[in-house]
Amino acid sequence: MSSCFCDKAIERTADDVATNAQDKLVQSSDPKHPANLICTLCKLFYYNNWVTGTGGGISIKDSKSKYIYIAPSGVQKEQLQPEDMFVMDPETDAYVRTPQKYKPSACTPLFMACYKRRAAGAVIHTHSQHAVMCSLIFGNEFKIANIEQIKAIPSGEKDPVTGKDINLSFFDTLAIPIIDNTAHEEDLVGGLQMALHQYPAATAVIVRRHGIYVWGPSVEKAKVFNEAIDYLMELAVKMYQLGIPPDCGIGDEKKHLTL
Amino acid sequence: MSSCFCDKAIERTADDVATNAQDKLVQSSDPKHPANLICTLCKLFYYNNWVTGTGGGISIKDSKSKYIYIAPSGVQKEQLQPEDMFVMDPETDAYVRTPQKYKPSACTPLFMACYKRRAAGAVIHTHSQHAVMCSLIFGNEFKIANIEQIKAIPSGEKDPVTGKDINLSFFDTLAIPIIDNTAHEEDLVGGLQMALHQYPAATAVIVRRHGIYVWGPSVEKAKVFNEAIDYLMELAVKMYQLGIPPDCGIGDEKKHLTL
Amino acid sequence: MSSCFCDKAIERTADDVATNAQDKLVQSSDPKHPANLICTLCKLFYYNNWVTGTGGGISIKDSKSKYIYIAPSGVQKEQLQPEDMFVMDPETDAYVRTPQKYKPSACTPLFMACYKRRAAGAVIHTHSQHAVMCSLIFGNEFKIANIEQIKAIPSGEKDPVTGKDINLSFFDTLAIPIIDNTAHEEDLVGGLQMALHQYPAATAVIVRRHGIYVWGPSVEKAKVFNEAIDYLMELAVKMYQLGIPPDCGIGDEKKHLTL
Amino acid sequence: MSSCFCDKAIERTADDVATNAQDKLVQSSDPKHPANLICTLCKLFYYNNWVTGTGGGISIKDSKSKYIYIAPSGVQKEQLQPEDMFVMDPETDAYVRTPQKYKPSACTPLFMACYKRRAAGAVIHTHSQHAVMCSLIFGNEFKIANIEQIKAIPSGEKDPVTGKDINLSFFDTLAIPIIDNTAHEEDLVGGLQMALHQYPAATAVIVRRHGIYVWGPSVEKAKVFNEAIDYLMELAVKMYQLGIPPDCGIGDEKKHLTL
Repeated sequence: MSSCFCDKAIERTADDVATNAQDKLVQSSDPKHPANLICTLCKLFYYNNWVTGTGGGISIKDSKSKYIYIAPSGVQKEQLQPEDMFVMDPETDAYVRTPQKYKPSACTPLFMACYKRRAAGAVIHTHSQHAVMCSLIFGNEFKIANIEQIKAIPSGEKDPVTGKDINLSFFDTLAIPIIDNTAHEEDLVGGLQMALHQYPAATAVIVRRHGIYVWGPSVEKAKVFNEAIDYLMELAVKMYQLGIPPDCGIGDEKKHLTL
Repeated sequence: MSSCFCDKAIERTADDVATNAQDKLVQSSDPKHPANLICTLCKLFYYNNWVTGTGGGISIKDSKSKYIYIAPSGVQKEQLQPEDMFVMDPETDAYVRTPQKYKPSACTPLFMACYKRRAAGAVIHTHSQHAVMCSLIFGNEFKIANIEQIKAIPSGEKDPVTGKDINLSFFDTLAIPIIDNTAHEEDLVGGLQMALHQYPAATAVIVRRHGIYVWGPSVEKAKVFNEAIDYLMELAVKMYQLGIPPDCGIGDEKKHLTL
Repeated sequence: MSSCFCDKAIERTADDVATNAQDKLVQSSDPKHPANLICTLCKLFYYNNWVTGTGGGISIKDSKSKYIYIAPSGVQKEQLQPEDMFVMDPETDAYVRTPQKYKPSACTPLFMACYKRRAAGAVIHTHSQHAVMCSLIFGNEFKIANIEQIKAIPSGEKDPVTGKDINLSFFDTLAIPIIDNTAHEEDLVGGLQMALHQYPAATAVIVRRHGIYVWGPSVEKAKVFNEAIDYLMELAVKMYQLGIPPDCGIGDEKKHLTL
Repeated sequence: MSSCFCDKAIERTADDVATNAQDKLVQSSDPKHPANLICTLCKLFYYNNWVTGTGGGISIKDSKSKYIYIAPSGVQKEQLQPEDMFVMDPETDAYVRTPQKYKPSACTPLFMACYKRRAAGAVIHTHSQHAVMCSLIFGNEFKIANIEQIKAIPSGEKDPVTGKDINLSFFDTLAIPIIDNTAHEEDLVGGLQMALHQYPAATAVIVRRHGIYVWGPSVEKAKVFNEAIDYLMELAVKMYQLGIPPDCGIGDEKKHLTL
């Protein structure tokens, strides 16, 4: 797909002259460079039906420069090119690179809140239908318990010796806060910050009738958390459809089967 | 797939001699050329189960020549080649290119109605099962409200300053007219034109037990509208299956949960 | 996938010497050659979940030699190579090519029945879950009416002038016979032949709790019929889940909605 | 995806010097080499939603060296590289290759149990949602009967003449034991061994609220069994949703239809 919508080849010459210094920030042959990785992940997310119709977004913090890379708003995510990226200096909250013809993502304030309050290395925002369905079924908290996949999610506790995150155990309950949506994405910041405050262990926040924000200490972790949580939300909807509360006790599921 | 059904390589030599001038209209190395883009999009639509079994169709207006490119009828959409395209001059409604061995798309009159009454830049027609299911659940209007993805769809109003389209807000209700199907696709024109008249803001029309027509000022916009609307129709069916009216008020969903 | 399971590269040398004349029948640079096309289609079918777990099969009649190409039995369909194909002479029902290490497909007698009683150009057999579900919901006939996609299926009537197949109209009802499964695939021939007799217009037969056989005058037509019928069976199950009889009259669907 | 997360290119130089002898065990140009095949299959499983979020695992026994290759734990399965593999000598249960920076798979003791008690050639472990749903619907046994796809699964009996496995017939019932999950994957060994003892014919064990383990005499067979069983579990959930017991007698399904 990508190749057939982008006329960057034409634009690039102009850009290069105009903003050469800025473009160095997004030009790299390393597939793990944030500008390249955002493009790769957006393609994957697109084919997962998470960011179709220009929905969703993603941001990665460069581990070396500490600069924050952000996909632009209202664009076809599967067709992003490295030169489409905004780059922000978290020290000053100023853009050190602004692509012509795009406007900054409305998700930016939410991404920044995760970087600042959670020392995130990356933040993923999708319009996953599993998240939307869970936000319709559940109240202010998505809860699922006693499913193996829960073990991919951190509990919030750290190993006293290694200092590494300790993940949830099979017998734990995963709880993800659900906040109400607002007219403008940037207005979600208040609700997000309250959720971050009330759920110090949370690595994700579901936005009702909208989607989900997932973050992690690195882009690899954020990607894994997003996959695991989406798997659990998908499973929760299936359980609910059979009458089984997703957080019911082991063995209790049989009492709830409606068929 | 594509490569294994088309023996164009053999036919081309013959064609080239016969209709060289016409073929210039569909030969371009630019992946954004309408003849190439239609092929790329039809492959994507095929793998989305939107145009299998020769269903659906697509048309793009060339922004330079103003000529209208149309995929032929009754062919395997995922295997289309640029030289399969019909090209029409909207000034005269005459074909300036007619591929041998294919018949014009039965969708042509509907595509033309969108170009003329809506100044469309492209029109997409799919047999999306989500559209068919919504046409069975809903009466003469598909309605969904208070879902973030709605914000990808234009409201019909324009910004007085910039003149740009203003999209729906999260708190709005998206309404898409549903017209009844006819024995012959071309006979849908009457219903389509009435819907265009009654819904001046509509960027799509659902055809009951058939599929959907989606258009936009450019092919990029038409693709985004089609993706966003399909996402919303898919979500609406899931909401309906849980007993939730897709256009119910925020917070009212809990009253409707059947489980 | 394919490349990583097949060690044909090693085997080929041996084969070539041993059965060179036979191998000429399956070696072609033309992607439309039956031996190549079966491999391509089986990959597509595999990713559609139609032939996983070695299920299903496909056969194509070469329009020039009239020889019949058949995929072997009990193999991973997505990994087939041209040299894996059986080739049969329909005049003598004798194999003119038998690959070492494979046994003929148990579907062969059913494929041959379609070739002889229906002048088929290709026969597709899948384990589509939509076919299995419809065979559980319906009795001896799968019926669906008033859906646009029906128009991809021939009615059995021919145009008196052109002699071409006339397809079903939107207002028609598609009826596909459902036969009961047997312990051994070859024993399905009796049921298939009775169905072919009772349904002279049928281009497919559903096998209860098993899958579906679809044929057509050419491989392109058989592929299109299979896609269109699978789309209709998938839609029928969705309609049934909402309480709507798939063959109910236009407008009657609302009376049946259970929610 | 793979290419954009792995920085092996940088690490490799260091590794090669350090553990050259060990690396020979995972370096091969043969796509069927266990180290390569594990990578290929994990990509396939990832796109089937079987091993997302670092879930699942796979192990293959090299038919020549008899060494056992095992994917590491807690890694993104779709991005595995041959040099990420652990290699164990089943004679001594000692690792003959241990990749730096990874920890052995928690599945290892379960894989070894299958190798030793079932003479397995490969073991596949997925977090298939169909397995989890079946473990919620069923008690201590998943049962499905009279479905063609069952014929891909061995019955446990062998042909007295050829000594080959005899598969289940269409009229048989497939029964797969369901064991309860434990806090730590390695603690599943007890339950697995009891199931292997009680179900001498079983080629798979479902772990409640977790996933499934599937094995076979070769990696090709294990892959086929896993695909066929996943197909049957998916179908069983669909049957259950319509009120049909997946193991009900032929013809009895109509009595159970809830609609």
